[in-house]
Amino acid sequence: MTSQAFEEISPADFFYRNRDIAGFTNPSRAIFASIRELVENSLDAAEIAMVPPDIYVRVTYSDGDPDSNVYKLRVEDNGSGITSRHIPSAFGQALFGSKYKLKQSRGTFGLGGTMAVLYGQITTHKPAYIVSSTGSTKVYKYRIMIDIQRNKPIILERKVLINKEQWHGTIVEFSLEGDYFRAMPKILEYLKQTAVVNPYANVAFIDPKGRFYKFTRVTTMMPSPPKETLPHPYGVDVETVKRLIQMTSHRNMLDFMRTHFHRISEKIAHSFLEFTGIAQTKNPKKLGPQEIVKLVQMMKRYEEFRPPSATCLSPLGEELLKAGILKELKPEFTAVCQRRPATYAGHPFIVETAIAYGGDIPRKGDFILYRFANRIPLLYDEASDVTFRVVKTMNWRRYKVSQDMPIAVLVHICSTKIPYKTVGKEFIADRPEVKREILNGIREVARKLQRFLSKREHVEREKRRLSVFSKYLPKIARFSTKLAGKETEPNIERLLESVNTVGGKEKNI
Amino acid sequence: MTSQAFEEISPADFFYRNRDIAGFTNPSRAIFASIRELVENSLDAAEIAMVPPDIYVRVTYSDGDPDSNVYKLRVEDNGSGITSRHIPSAFGQALFGSKYKLKQSRGTFGLGGTMAVLYGQITTHKPAYIVSSTGSTKVYKYRIMIDIQRNKPIILERKVLINKEQWHGTIVEFSLEGDYFRAMPKILEYLKQTAVVNPYANVAFIDPKGRFYKFTRVTTMMPSPPKETLPHPYGVDVETVKRLIQMTSHRNMLDFMRTHFHRISEKIAHSFLEFTGIAQTKNPKKLGPQEIVKLVQMMKRYEEFRPPSATCLSPLGEELLKAGILKELKPEFTAVCQRRPATYAGHPFIVETAIAYGGDIPRKGDFILYRFANRIPLLYDEASDVTFRVVKTMNWRRYKVSQDMPIAVLVHICSTKIPYKTVGKEFIADRPEVKREILNGIREVARKLQRFLSKREHVEREKRRLSVFSKYLPKIARFSTKLAGKETEPNIERLLESVNTVGGKEKNI
Repeated sequence: MTSQAFEEISPADFFYRNRDIAGFTNPSRAIFASIRELVENSLDAAEIAMVPPDIYVRVTYSDGDPDSNVYKLRVEDNGSGITSRHIPSAFGQALFGSKYKLKQSRGTFGLGGTMAVLYGQITTHKPAYIVSSTGSTKVYKYRIMIDIQRNKPIILERKVLINKEQWHGTIVEFSLEGDYFRAMPKILEYLKQTAVVNPYANVAFIDPKGRFYKFTRVTTMMPSPPKETLPHPYGVDVETVKRLIQMTSHRNMLDFMRTHFHRISEKIAHSFLEFTGIAQTKNPKKLGPQEIVKLVQMMKRYEEFRPPSATCLSPLGEELLKAGILKELKPEFTAVCQRRPATYAGHPFIVETAIAYGGDIPRKGDFILYRFANRIPLLYDEASDVTFRVVKTMNWRRYKVSQDMPIAVLVHICSTKIPYKTVGKEFIADRPEVKREILNGIREVARKLQRFLSKREHVEREKRRLSVFSKYLPKIARFSTKLAGKETEPNIERLLESVNTVGGKEKNI
Repeated sequence: MTSQAFEEISPADFFYRNRDIAGFTNPSRAIFASIRELVENSLDAAEIAMVPPDIYVRVTYSDGDPDSNVYKLRVEDNGSGITSRHIPSAFGQALFGSKYKLKQSRGTFGLGGTMAVLYGQITTHKPAYIVSSTGSTKVYKYRIMIDIQRNKPIILERKVLINKEQWHGTIVEFSLEGDYFRAMPKILEYLKQTAVVNPYANVAFIDPKGRFYKFTRVTTMMPSPPKETLPHPYGVDVETVKRLIQMTSHRNMLDFMRTHFHRISEKIAHSFLEFTGIAQTKNPKKLGPQEIVKLVQMMKRYEEFRPPSATCLSPLGEELLKAGILKELKPEFTAVCQRRPATYAGHPFIVETAIAYGGDIPRKGDFILYRFANRIPLLYDEASDVTFRVVKTMNWRRYKVSQDMPIAVLVHICSTKIPYKTVGKEFIADRPEVKREILNGIREVARKLQRFLSKREHVEREKRRLSVFSKYLPKIARFSTKLAGKETEPNIERLLESVNTVGGKEKNI
């Protein structure tokens, strides 16, 4: 009898074998994903350092040969930097990262930097260079490769330099096979949209032909940085509670509940424990397995918990949203909306929506969709995204809107945990709570558009009326004069003016 | 200056935190995904044992309480079984599996069983039971939990029983939170479609209300089991070649190329090495990093490699495909097509397509799409699948077909590596080679449908003609008789018959 042969593979090996799920599907996607992952790391690092990001991205031919499909990618930032001992693992080990927190950040999977370096290695077999400093007296320079089967970085070289200028930041450089020219439109679109939602960032990009693209910051005001939060009782499972029990120093349930969960006051902890029937004085470490299960189930049933606070979130804000759209699309009309904080599975989130009409927006038979999550643009797999489905299934006729109008819809979701469906962060899962917020957000801006459109229609009607009057009134005046046998025609200017005023008034609304 | 805090997480922890990417998004998806992953493991195991699968699935209320959302899931099979020492890890460790081979199998990520057990544990905190035997003298029974943070199984109990009947197979039982009644339609559809493409399998299912569903095999003839293959030179990267060099016992490049790659004869190895400029006698272990890169690049450029052989693949076959469709849809017309083996990134694949018209197929304004990959039905995220895009963008008017006709399209892809985009195996990435095959396959069956439809149209026309004739001919005969002043009408039967024959002939085509 044949039996199955089992083996264990490392996380790096898993993602090496299944690059598709991390967005490294082909040479064109790979170069896009590499740039994107490193830029997002850089933006996150600058926000941690609380400095307006200065990011420099350069793609050159690896051997100076324009016919080669091997490129050298370099990304520099002025972010918080990485402590020396973590540098090799941050870029040479899968599932090692700084993103495993309940906190709004662009990175989620702690995988991006390593995937980029790994892809470079398996296509070029060349090491990656990383230079970083946290602003201390030293700068560290590493040359590394990845032992994929063991999921460990191999340090080929390590140098320590003196940091005279107290520079902080990270520089990553490595070679990879790619298809830059196929990826180019998406890369430029990505950088452009990133600039729109991060208006406090400088992003410079030099492409292999030496073309220089610069997205200059329009403000140095940074949004308040997102904060780490405690888990909300609605969103925890048995595993989370077990881990909290393991690490807690509290010896009674009341303090345990108050300390380790989001927005539980003494009063609520008190009333909740009464609801569960678990004694306030009980030592959490003494809870049996089925008591933990019960605790978790009760958390989902108890209705008095306060909703997650959104203070840990950093939305764009209506003003910024509007500014970005006006800058990029120069529309005739725009409306924005920031929804109130909501929650799914215990994770707080905020949806922001915008709609724009006319101006530079092309008519292409479909609305143009801009999707953002935690301030990063999502460019691939639009049809799988929850936003796409919402827009597609909405009854737009109700808003006097048809698909062939020049309309752009923008949706930004920020959350401590974006429910991505792929590790490549291409699109967002259909969580009903998120879907509802998006729907209501789009409805709100759609209503504003409707008002604009029906007013404009009214104005158009008035204009037509006026044009009819101004065409025929002089003739009528002339005929009437002749009919009456008079010589001088009556003054029709005042009459026309009164018609004009109606249109004019409407125009100004 | 704030710096980033780094941490390492285990693979189990990664998938625990990111359940969305493995298809465990909500209680409804979770129960569907659990059943699906275990059934697919069972089908694979039976094929390894080369016995027609007998699979038994049972979902009951965990505590007999119909108001509870906690279910007990049990899946039994008669497959190859798992050797005792591997049982705990097979279900209690992420990235430990038997699916990491170049071989057509339903499982791909080696993650399904563990994810199901893990989900059960984090929602119910209860252990999982696994009973298995490879048909030896013993049956092993384990009770395990998962240490998620360390990615290790915790063995709570281990029993060894005497295997008098030489039983082989695996039984898995565990509790999980779920929403069975929301998932029910998808679960039944999944089992039904699975039965269609695995007509040699018995699948029995008992749901929480005690309802019994049975899908009985219609044949005991098993397809020849898929074989493991060597990597094809077009599809390898530097990492793969490095690993092969590490493990090879060959001391020269000629033998190295012949032994470790797919379909490289001595002659091709000879000519290829000449093409690369690497000496045949060179010891592969002495290749420098840049020589390995060159070797890989040359493999992609060399045009004389034979295409991957499809002997390692196990497609459905046109007959089986047709039988499945006739059974399920009872269509008026059906056409099937098996494309010739093709390859993407060195992985062989075969596309099979079918189209069906009329019969039980409803008119719903859109075609019904059936998607299969390595004999498993794909039910979620249709709009993201490459097949959906192909069907949507095809010019159906060319085939005289419109979206509101009762049409079903079926696509099956089998490959040693299905390019899934999510770990949840919901949909397939847009690989251009795969897309092209699907397009050509659908075109072929669409052409056959077109011929059928235009013939039917012709028949309809003839029928109408005949009906006109048979209506008016007797009247004309009568009038003519009267006009001629005769008594007996002429015999019009022969005339009508000649008209009829034209229609009849067409009908039989």
